[in-house]
Amino acid sequence: MLKNTVVIKMKKIKVNLHTDEIPTKWYNILPDLPPGYPPPLDPKTFKPISPEPMMRLFPKECVMQAVSTQREINIPEEVLETYLAIGRPTPLQRAVRLERALNTPARIYFKREDVNPAGSHKPNTAIAQAYYNMKEGVERLTTETGAGQWGSALALACSLFNLKCTVYMTRSSYLTKPGRRIVMEAFGAEVYPSPSDKTDFGRKLLEKDKNHPGSLGIAISEAVEDCIKNERTKYSLGSVLDFVLLHQTIVGLEAKKQMEIIDEYPEVVVGCIGGGSNYAGLCYPFIQDKLKGKKDITFIASEPKAVPSTTKGVYEYDYGDTAEIAPIVKMYTVGHTYQCPPIHAAGLRYHGKAPSMSFLINKGVMESRAYTQTEVMEAASLFARTEGFIAAPETAHAIKTVIDLAIECKRRGVGKTILFNYSGHGLLDLKVYEEYHSNTLQDFEATREMLEAGFKSLPKIPA
Amino acid sequence: MLKNTVVIKMKKIKVNLHTDEIPTKWYNILPDLPPGYPPPLDPKTFKPISPEPMMRLFPKECVMQAVSTQREINIPEEVLETYLAIGRPTPLQRAVRLERALNTPARIYFKREDVNPAGSHKPNTAIAQAYYNMKEGVERLTTETGAGQWGSALALACSLFNLKCTVYMTRSSYLTKPGRRIVMEAFGAEVYPSPSDKTDFGRKLLEKDKNHPGSLGIAISEAVEDCIKNERTKYSLGSVLDFVLLHQTIVGLEAKKQMEIIDEYPEVVVGCIGGGSNYAGLCYPFIQDKLKGKKDITFIASEPKAVPSTTKGVYEYDYGDTAEIAPIVKMYTVGHTYQCPPIHAAGLRYHGKAPSMSFLINKGVMESRAYTQTEVMEAASLFARTEGFIAAPETAHAIKTVIDLAIECKRRGVGKTILFNYSGHGLLDLKVYEEYHSNTLQDFEATREMLEAGFKSLPKIPA
Repeated sequence: MLKNTVVIKMKKIKVNLHTDEIPTKWYNILPDLPPGYPPPLDPKTFKPISPEPMMRLFPKECVMQAVSTQREINIPEEVLETYLAIGRPTPLQRAVRLERALNTPARIYFKREDVNPAGSHKPNTAIAQAYYNMKEGVERLTTETGAGQWGSALALACSLFNLKCTVYMTRSSYLTKPGRRIVMEAFGAEVYPSPSDKTDFGRKLLEKDKNHPGSLGIAISEAVEDCIKNERTKYSLGSVLDFVLLHQTIVGLEAKKQMEIIDEYPEVVVGCIGGGSNYAGLCYPFIQDKLKGKKDITFIASEPKAVPSTTKGVYEYDYGDTAEIAPIVKMYTVGHTYQCPPIHAAGLRYHGKAPSMSFLINKGVMESRAYTQTEVMEAASLFARTEGFIAAPETAHAIKTVIDLAIECKRRGVGKTILFNYSGHGLLDLKVYEEYHSNTLQDFEATREMLEAGFKSLPKIPA
Repeated sequence: MLKNTVVIKMKKIKVNLHTDEIPTKWYNILPDLPPGYPPPLDPKTFKPISPEPMMRLFPKECVMQAVSTQREINIPEEVLETYLAIGRPTPLQRAVRLERALNTPARIYFKREDVNPAGSHKPNTAIAQAYYNMKEGVERLTTETGAGQWGSALALACSLFNLKCTVYMTRSSYLTKPGRRIVMEAFGAEVYPSPSDKTDFGRKLLEKDKNHPGSLGIAISEAVEDCIKNERTKYSLGSVLDFVLLHQTIVGLEAKKQMEIIDEYPEVVVGCIGGGSNYAGLCYPFIQDKLKGKKDITFIASEPKAVPSTTKGVYEYDYGDTAEIAPIVKMYTVGHTYQCPPIHAAGLRYHGKAPSMSFLINKGVMESRAYTQTEVMEAASLFARTEGFIAAPETAHAIKTVIDLAIECKRRGVGKTILFNYSGHGLLDLKVYEEYHSNTLQDFEATREMLEAGFKSLPKIPA
């Protein structure tokens, strides 16, 4: 038997949950948001959109979740079982060796969302969406993917619920990340480089440039078009929407339980943001305590300087896709025609951020910071050599914030408790590590010209 | 709260262990082996080798573990903490969807050894070896790697214990698997294609053929030479040796605890064998019960037809490396000069098998089966589409055996409990999936000529 002191020490390093300790409800932040949360608008009439047209794209259950006033929403039994099968509950652990290397009084905890077959947090919503679609009799899901994390997750979820899956993958990623494509195909998905010849919008773009590199906005437009034009087909989105963020709250609910077990509570909660779902998943259950005045917590979102939606963008209504067919939402955005530089963290290339998160940032509940890719890979490299984990380039943004905070703690002699979302591993993004170590990594920052060009595309909403 | 029936159902799908439920001792099978286990011999004198010369290569603690008569050996506290930090205890889960797809009455359980940063079981011994070396004041470890699983694991362990690490990677893998190299370099290791210009043996081979593809035997010879010629440098081996297998028993000890929790006990235990360590790790704690007459269990080891050591090889004394400088051991072997075909499962290319496992196979305690790579990838593909896990091509061999057994169960109407080691993921070996799905995968089988050529190199031991 282990000595009691050793057990206590070990529990502080890592907290596992037993199967029956998995949370059984998601947390819906909508009823707890400050008043005045702007509704989504119809892209043609600019009037608030009713749930019904959304049901052509998404399962009814998901659409209703996005307008629910219930704080807690039951996770269906089959979704729970599938969460278990692919890796939940996930470990919470303390980055002891990183703390030691930084000689910081900060206590750094991270939630491992990389331990499932898709290697990121994305299956948390992919599984829920695939399940609700299966229940409704849908036969095929369409979606887009940039880095391939989301596409892999949806392909995985569809294979687990016997649905067909069609993925439009931005051509630049399709060509440079064959690994992600092979993973999706191994799960039985059909994967097309976007723009593709499968849709009107894709064909139109290919006519102008047959080597068009694509963008997330374009791939979304193609996936939506494919959905609308085909029967028993629905569309699936991996971030931004309220019901997607809802499904991700399993991350924060588990983390809260795990921190309680070791008598800890985070003073700072950190995550990277592309659309915002991994960070929302971790932080919304904690934000609840802040909004209710129960706890004083700092929330910091990390984004790339190449896509500085929350740090240099505007808080305005914008289209979710390039073809302007998806509903428009009020969010921090660099404009839906923004020309995104080819950063490795393709999962952070989306022009906007989740409306609920944008609203919280706008209200001052959350902060954000932006970095170049060399900065974040320096942080990821230190994390790999101390903690042994090869982070995805997206996740590296969160690690950069955490390391900066830990150094700040050291300088000020204050030992804060920091929690971050280790949202995914980088095993299918190793080129960024090779470029970093060989000093060939190129940095990109949004210039004033790039931003102004993007802002020009914002819809003119009548007052 | 969940209903009790749901909790029971969920527990049957997956069993997690809490941090303080991790086993704190390894199981040493040596005192439980049948009498007559043949000792390792000196490669020059053919006399039983004493522990002392082994200590030039390995830490004293490991060498002593390999001759220990203690059934249980304490896992040092720092090793336990590092096990926790990188992913232990690992989940045990049931392949419910695979069972359903096969319509089999068999209950299939697997132990997930892929949830650490190196993606395989290998860190279980890499961490122990790095720790004991660090304790002895060693500054650098040398090793070889084929597929890269072992090299990644040792590079990881060395970075966690602040040791330098030099990896000789077979040139064929070095060129075709850049991902594994980048991972090792991200952990701070130096990686050389083998044969290399860093050793006399390597230079000799390069003189004859500057594009020599290398082999595991050659890479071992280079790593051992580098160790012997340099101070404060030791060598590390990832399989075959008794102390390596000992460190892997944490896998089976956890699995035993997890199966007890759900009132199960395996009737068949399956694993793939290269050197034999992942399978020994899972099955030795169960073999103990068979050897003591407590349980009737079937043990089946799976190997490639391209390297059929236990199915078409001989049970003889053979060298562990190509340069004939490592100790010779009695094992199932195809001969240390065997020309291994380029199968994707590079981790199964080693010419011999662990002496203790070979002894158990020879005594009839364990069986073995052999497959072509198309057969195993067909099994892995079904596993990916039902369970959602992309297995390493090595692990695919175990999955093939399990699926065959489950089909057999269905035909005979018998519901057996099967347990196998999901020894690693295939995210850095995706080419094999691509070739399988595009029908370009090539099969290899050892011919009589290949085997006879290999057998000719066996040492002539005087009676």
